[in-house]
Amino acid sequence: MQTLAQHPPSSFLDAIVAPAELKKLSLNELRSLAQEIRSEIVRNLNVTGGHLASNLGIVEITLALHYVFDTPKDQILWDVGHQAYVHKMLTGRRDRFNTLRQFKGLSGFINPNESEHDAFVAGHSSTSVSLGVGMAIARDHLKQDHKVIALIGDGGLTGGMALEALNHLGHIQRDVLILLNDNEMSISENMGGLSQYMKRIKETFFYKDIKQKITLLEDQLDGMSLTPAVWKLIESVKHEATERIDTPGIVFEKLGVNYSGPIDGHDVGAIIEVFNKVKDEHVPLIAHLITQKGKGFDPAERDSIKYHGVKKSYNLEPRVEPAADKKIAAKTYSDVFTESLISLAEVEPNLVAITPATAEGSGLVKFGKAYPERFFDVAICEQHAVTMAAGMAKAGLKPVVSIYSTFLQRAIDQVIHDVAIMNLPVVFGIDRGGLVEDGETHQGVFDIAYLRSVPNFTVLAPKDGAELRNMLYTVIKNLKGPVAIRFPRDEVFNPELLKTPMETIDLSKWDVVQEGTPLEGTNNKVVLLAFGSMVKTAVDAAALMKPQGLDVTIVNARSVKPLDFAMLTTLLQNAENKIITLEEGCLSGGFGAAVMEFRSQLRLTAPQTRLAEIAPLGVPDNFIEHGGRSILLDEVGLSKTKIADFVLKYSKS
Amino acid sequence: MQTLAQHPPSSFLDAIVAPAELKKLSLNELRSLAQEIRSEIVRNLNVTGGHLASNLGIVEITLALHYVFDTPKDQILWDVGHQAYVHKMLTGRRDRFNTLRQFKGLSGFINPNESEHDAFVAGHSSTSVSLGVGMAIARDHLKQDHKVIALIGDGGLTGGMALEALNHLGHIQRDVLILLNDNEMSISENMGGLSQYMKRIKETFFYKDIKQKITLLEDQLDGMSLTPAVWKLIESVKHEATERIDTPGIVFEKLGVNYSGPIDGHDVGAIIEVFNKVKDEHVPLIAHLITQKGKGFDPAERDSIKYHGVKKSYNLEPRVEPAADKKIAAKTYSDVFTESLISLAEVEPNLVAITPATAEGSGLVKFGKAYPERFFDVAICEQHAVTMAAGMAKAGLKPVVSIYSTFLQRAIDQVIHDVAIMNLPVVFGIDRGGLVEDGETHQGVFDIAYLRSVPNFTVLAPKDGAELRNMLYTVIKNLKGPVAIRFPRDEVFNPELLKTPMETIDLSKWDVVQEGTPLEGTNNKVVLLAFGSMVKTAVDAAALMKPQGLDVTIVNARSVKPLDFAMLTTLLQNAENKIITLEEGCLSGGFGAAVMEFRSQLRLTAPQTRLAEIAPLGVPDNFIEHGGRSILLDEVGLSKTKIADFVLKYSKS
Repeated sequence: MQTLAQHPPSSFLDAIVAPAELKKLSLNELRSLAQEIRSEIVRNLNVTGGHLASNLGIVEITLALHYVFDTPKDQILWDVGHQAYVHKMLTGRRDRFNTLRQFKGLSGFINPNESEHDAFVAGHSSTSVSLGVGMAIARDHLKQDHKVIALIGDGGLTGGMALEALNHLGHIQRDVLILLNDNEMSISENMGGLSQYMKRIKETFFYKDIKQKITLLEDQLDGMSLTPAVWKLIESVKHEATERIDTPGIVFEKLGVNYSGPIDGHDVGAIIEVFNKVKDEHVPLIAHLITQKGKGFDPAERDSIKYHGVKKSYNLEPRVEPAADKKIAAKTYSDVFTESLISLAEVEPNLVAITPATAEGSGLVKFGKAYPERFFDVAICEQHAVTMAAGMAKAGLKPVVSIYSTFLQRAIDQVIHDVAIMNLPVVFGIDRGGLVEDGETHQGVFDIAYLRSVPNFTVLAPKDGAELRNMLYTVIKNLKGPVAIRFPRDEVFNPELLKTPMETIDLSKWDVVQEGTPLEGTNNKVVLLAFGSMVKTAVDAAALMKPQGLDVTIVNARSVKPLDFAMLTTLLQNAENKIITLEEGCLSGGFGAAVMEFRSQLRLTAPQTRLAEIAPLGVPDNFIEHGGRSILLDEVGLSKTKIADFVLKYSKS
Repeated sequence: MQTLAQHPPSSFLDAIVAPAELKKLSLNELRSLAQEIRSEIVRNLNVTGGHLASNLGIVEITLALHYVFDTPKDQILWDVGHQAYVHKMLTGRRDRFNTLRQFKGLSGFINPNESEHDAFVAGHSSTSVSLGVGMAIARDHLKQDHKVIALIGDGGLTGGMALEALNHLGHIQRDVLILLNDNEMSISENMGGLSQYMKRIKETFFYKDIKQKITLLEDQLDGMSLTPAVWKLIESVKHEATERIDTPGIVFEKLGVNYSGPIDGHDVGAIIEVFNKVKDEHVPLIAHLITQKGKGFDPAERDSIKYHGVKKSYNLEPRVEPAADKKIAAKTYSDVFTESLISLAEVEPNLVAITPATAEGSGLVKFGKAYPERFFDVAICEQHAVTMAAGMAKAGLKPVVSIYSTFLQRAIDQVIHDVAIMNLPVVFGIDRGGLVEDGETHQGVFDIAYLRSVPNFTVLAPKDGAELRNMLYTVIKNLKGPVAIRFPRDEVFNPELLKTPMETIDLSKWDVVQEGTPLEGTNNKVVLLAFGSMVKTAVDAAALMKPQGLDVTIVNARSVKPLDFAMLTTLLQNAENKIITLEEGCLSGGFGAAVMEFRSQLRLTAPQTRLAEIAPLGVPDNFIEHGGRSILLDEVGLSKTKIADFVLKYSKS
């Protein structure tokens, strides 16, 4: 299979510029097309990187969807949306497929701005059934006639909101076709009773219908002199058996959603048959499709977790590293986070780690291997993860929740209601805080603002890898209440400091990273207050400014809550200081706003004293698209050059 | 039953100062105690107000819990926590029961600060199973030996996070006893396939076991000359029937959680028997208890929705209103919201209303009666409600989501990910924005901060009832993107204006409510920028200040996003103006912060121009306890007198 990429240019695929062409193909031609598509995906992702295994797994389902249904009239809702590459190729975007996930190129997720065939933005899991219910209600109200199809994985189905939607759909009985793409896998291995249940469904794939057996029994007994009472008894057994029997989809059917399956999700003919059958049935129905992630590409079939998302050049032509670039693989903040937790777990027997299905991305899978009994992957259940951690903390454990900034949005109420009101010592390791290449749905830019407004919280960000370790060490040692430690998706700053031993640090104090010289002929300084990842950028920007005659002060503002009131008071009381805040987060309500709020309080203590002003730099008030992180940082004005330009100009104003 | 309140002082209840005394009683004595407790609850709530029906419904379960288990060693997790009055009475708080929900009195919810018998804060629904899973893991890890009991209602079970937790528990198989208190009712009538499923369980309460029938059949056939093949067939039917039969709790058992029930939740003997049986079974188990809300108090049995929460003097001794107080019942913001929606629905056929189980509290039940086909109560499913609305908006409807501020916290990710990124025209009617008497878990103080940081959002608050109507009218007419309209739990300001017809208003412009006079000998003004409910308070505070020689300007800052940039620019450019922002929301990241952020941007356009400073007033950075709203507002400095005091002092500074 690995040789697929060397295949000649495809033929069926070339002919398809819109789904209409697809409908003209025979079953055998569809099967060939499936192979061509797999080949193209493997080839392309080698250049662009992207979600490999899930897209290889969904080729036949996507073909059958466009074969039977008519987008954009029929609405397909792709849960998560990173498995829509095939769909993109079939809906007129094949020529741009080589721009996948590149800045200003095709999004790696579903995106209505790209195509009328994309019904809805998706990036987070478990939304498609709710969207489907909403669209079905709208269709019925507007007396329209089309199919609403919600595609969801077995992982997505563990998310609470998907279960809420299923429950509601069972009640209101609208025509929504749910395609359960069951590969027994969310990003991590899937967890939960529901997933085990579905596994058992598959094991009884061919189990005989009890009704059939009773009919057989009736035949055997026919002609024997049985009393009417016995016949009645047999009839009654038959009735109850068929009424109450455990069919494969009984859990769904008990909730009021019809069930069809399990179906081989790689048999395009079988899928088309089922779709044709259910097309005109106007009831809620789950079609249970069994697929294999990575299907058709051997390495990905063998290890679909590894091949969930791939970087460029993951295969085929091993990249030859230039000798000059050879170095020990750089450590990311995620690496340091996990390694620190593993070290701390040695000395702290009650430390436990929790992840909502991001064990691989966060690197926490290593912790799970080191301490399987103290590692809890709860599947795509952010809400449950946070509240479970609250329960653990209250009962005497030291839970650390590893979660991406963007996914913590799912559990803000739990952060407030279950952790913060109780002031419980739960540590949140917030990964991917700031900009990420995945685009709008994944930007981790709101966390500073929303966490900062929650009472009892401490909100930290380390400037480098060593500080991340020391923060973890300090909070695990002295934990009194909830703490969030936020770090970017990046290699660590100051990797050489990782060799030093862990030590406790004063979390409420900021550090002066470099002391600048006053502006000429004055006592006024230009001060960059940098939060987390912005310390490194500030240092780099300072190096650009120095040759231009500006020597700035840089403060590692490691804690946005609480602020370092003493240092801020000193800085603000020199009214001519030029203070700039730097944060990789939204300006609205973020770190800059926090400093301004403190300034307003300080002013009330001496209203006639003039205070220095604050110039905040951060992520502006719009959704940031996909593209490389450094490109995006530059776009929003947070690259070292943009910061240097701003500060040079501002210092002269 | 209504005469219960006239009963003599209770005897069994008097003897119980801690759960230990309870354990000495006989079954008959427990039954008498149950009556005494009901009587005391009815009598007390007539004085204090509170949650009546749910507490009357849970008397026997609570007695059995304390009879069989030992708190605080055993951990009881009360979902929502407003049904714990009986528990409070039995755990040493009976003498303070008359202070229920009063400022500095007993909380209306579970509160660990009150008693070691309260394991965890609760106020929002559907958290108990997650907490239970966390506590069970902690217990096992710490090698402790006690029972973890999660109590949850059938309404709470529809919440996504409860389903996440159940699914996880089924997987990890820890010892958690879940008590499903099934009264077929969340706050509103319960929705969802799961609830219908549980109803069917109850209908088959006494259904005959199919196995029994097959055995009977075997007996009948015994002695007849049947071939071994036929006997084998019968055996096989019997096996499959018993293996795969639809037992009452099959949905739960398929998820890996054992099921026991249904059990009569008012038969204290039966409950004790079940508890004793499962006490030492170390598996996850759901005990399904059927109860009746309002049990034992006729009016509440008949109408448990009306008697869900009661105000003081709801019964027994009809309060005689003093003649002077007689007036047409004052309209609340909730009333005006619903009435406006009903009017607008007449002219806008695609307007639909959605509520997550708060139809009564929000008054939206009236909309449901007027437009049953356009009304969607999705049960306690805030996430699903918001994303479903996004689907509806995308498909051409005009959805209005009515939701309490505190409950919208559950759906912030959906607000960002499903509504705002798509820039969909969804209207959020945010009820109970600001302080409420229910306490920490219910304060609606974070919404301004978290909504304001979401791109594409418009965030509004009306100063009075007429403006609420006009806002709704305007946004429904011209809706382009998401809009939040936030209003307090209060009677409307300026009720007389409700007689005027609806009209469109410019939402991005603020209004000067009253123009003050400049400070003596200057051109400087004291300006109160008031958001929403604070406009009325500002007007009242101004009336207090005027006799003291200060005539302030009051601005109705109806939109916190966008701000009125033109007006703010004018106000800020007079550097000696004294500008005070007023908001019934958290200071961190709120309206005041928004004004400061704008000021910082304005400064960058002309760094040498001095601008006026901002003094923000709002809710401080701690959780606000329960008590009357006006008491709480005074506590946080937002009463008219506190504001007047602050402004008078500040204006002289």
